Amino acid sequence: MQKINLKINLTKFNDHWSPKIVDELNDSYIKLAKFKGEFTWHKHDTEDELFLVVKGTLVIKLRNQEDVVIKQGELIVIPKGIEHLPVAKEEVHVMLIEPKGILNTGNIESVFTKKELDRI
Amino acid sequence: MQKINLKINLTKFNDHWSPKIVDELNDSYIKLAKFKGEFTWHKHDTEDELFLVVKGTLVIKLRNQEDVVIKQGELIVIPKGIEHLPVAKEEVHVMLIEPKGILNTGNIESVFTKKELDRI
Repeated sequence: MQKINLKINLTKFNDHWSPKIVDELNDSYIKLAKFKGEFTWHKHDTEDELFLVVKGTLVIKLRNQEDVVIKQGELIVIPKGIEHLPVAKEEVHVMLIEPKGILNTGNIESVFTKKELDRI
Repeated sequence: MQKINLKINLTKFNDHWSPKIVDELNDSYIKLAKFKGEFTWHKHDTEDELFLVVKGTLVIKLRNQEDVVIKQGELIVIPKGIEHLPVAKEEVHVMLIEPKGILNTGNIESVFTKKELDRI
């Protein structure tokens, strides 16, 4: 058991759209990631997903709803089954919490799909 | 579905050791709380518990281990079964994530026990 400093751990990698596991919480992993550009539309049929912005501004596009703009110190939970598209016009640093078995691209396989995640 | 600004939500209450529910994440609640002073030694036999410090400094005392000092932008997961004592020398603002059925004082009933939590 040890504390995790989000900003220090975010200095340990630079690749985009490639979440790193930093800890476990019950049946979920706590992950850190850097996003830049546009991800891929997807949904997670059985898992809610938390995004907490540590640095920068994250836009979540949704079907038939206004974009949600999430800034440093803000979080959003994307409920299971909701299609979403994360977009980072400039690089954004995020903490994610989601069940261990989740696939980052949900119901879609694309160039962004990561089947194995590193731990830092 | 809406974003949650941690600091703005933390202006909505002032009582200590009384977590407020702000959202749900799978089988857990996301809560905000203000701590000041010393809580009570306790453990959660079946639930891991996340503390993320939003403002101030939180000390977690543990049996037979050094205290863990958690500052703004840092988090700790207290694993199930581990006795711990949160201490806030000055007021500290935290985000908690823990399974819905958890009791704040775990295996102990005390003046700190909150059986019903408010939502904000």
